Order: sequence, then C-alpha cells, then structure tokens
Amino acid sequence: MTHPAQRLDDTVHQRVRLGVLAVLAEVRRADFAYLRDALELTDGNLSRHIAVLEQAGLVEVEKGFEGRRSRTWVQATADGRRALKAEMQALRELISRVDAGH
Amino acid sequence: MTHPAQRLDDTVHQRVRLGVLAVLAEVRRADFAYLRDALELTDGNLSRHIAVLEQAGLVEVEKGFEGRRSRTWVQATADGRRALKAEMQALRELISRVDAGH
Repeated sequence: MTHPAQRLDDTVHQRVRLGVLAVLAEVRRADFAYLRDALELTDGNLSRHIAVLEQAGLVEVEKGFEGRRSRTWVQATADGRRALKAEMQALRELISRVDAGH
Repeated sequence: MTHPAQRLDDTVHQRVRLGVLAVLAEVRRADFAYLRDALELTDGNLSRHIAVLEQAGLVEVEKGFEGRRSRTWVQATADGRRALKAEMQALRELISRVDAGH
C-alpha cells in the first residue's frame, strides 16, 4: 500500500498555495488584498504563488475595477477544486496514520 | 483570527519531509532503505531532506551495522514529534475550514 505522502502534489501542497486554495474554497472568489491579508503574505510572495497556480490551471485571475480602484480577483477552477479535494483526502489519510501510530 | 495555513512551517510541511516524519510516527525508528521504499523516493532526494530535518533538530541519524551491512537509522526527536503534532493540528483546522466551505 502506498503511503498517502506519495499522493501529495507539490503544486497544491506547498504552504502558500495550499493556503490560497483553502481560502478560495471558503469564499469562492477573493481579491488579491484579501488573500494577502488572510494569509499574511507579502505582495511579491502571493503574486509568485498565484502565478504558479494560474499556470497549472488551478486558479483564474481577473483584473477589474471597483469604482476607481483596480482589483485583482482570484478564483479556483474546476481543476483547482478537484486538486484541493485530492490533497484533503491524502492529508486525512496521513493524519489518521500518524494518529494510529501514537 | 489567523488562517491555519499561516501556522504551516516549511521545514515540516514540505511533502517529502512530512512523509518522513509521518512514517517515523508510525514506526519510531526506520532505516534509510525503509523510508526510501515507503515513500518511493530516490536516495539523493531522501538524503537531502533527512539532512534538512537533522539540521533543524527534528530527526536523529545513527549509522551502524547489521551483520556486515551498513545501515542508517533515522528517528524523530522530541522536537520532531512536537513539530509534527503542530502540523497535524494546523492541517486538521485547515481541512475543517475547507469542508465547511463546500
């Protein structure tokens, strides 16, 4: 039987990206500033990881305006939701194996 | 309230290192070949990540012999067990927030 850690995918599992996908599961669509503040990240760090997620087809980024303020909206794609679900399943199994070992 | 993703620590959260600490929670002490096979890693990849964990004081590495075969034993330190426990707690909260969002 394979260990659930083998099913963790770096694209989704990486700390910042997992945080972004988790927040997007809670709020559906978030603007850049909301994600930055919710996860206490710098602009640069968040931008870099959103670019990785976008490149992998896991999030969609949309730029727009709210009044005169420019906003960057981020939301998970269907693939992103599926990838997060697979990650949650692998983590659940990993946690229950760790719990059983104690 | 801070998002649980903020409490994920790269040293422990990284995929391979989380796998190593999870296996060590199950078996207490594992030799290098066992970890490599359980997690389907290359020797180089596993070595690199064990070195990071050792440097951080999360595992102890002991070299010895079994008959004529050299063996490298790895076990978690008390700090390593604590760090894994904190990671499991952060992951549990992250999972329950994701579940609540669906």
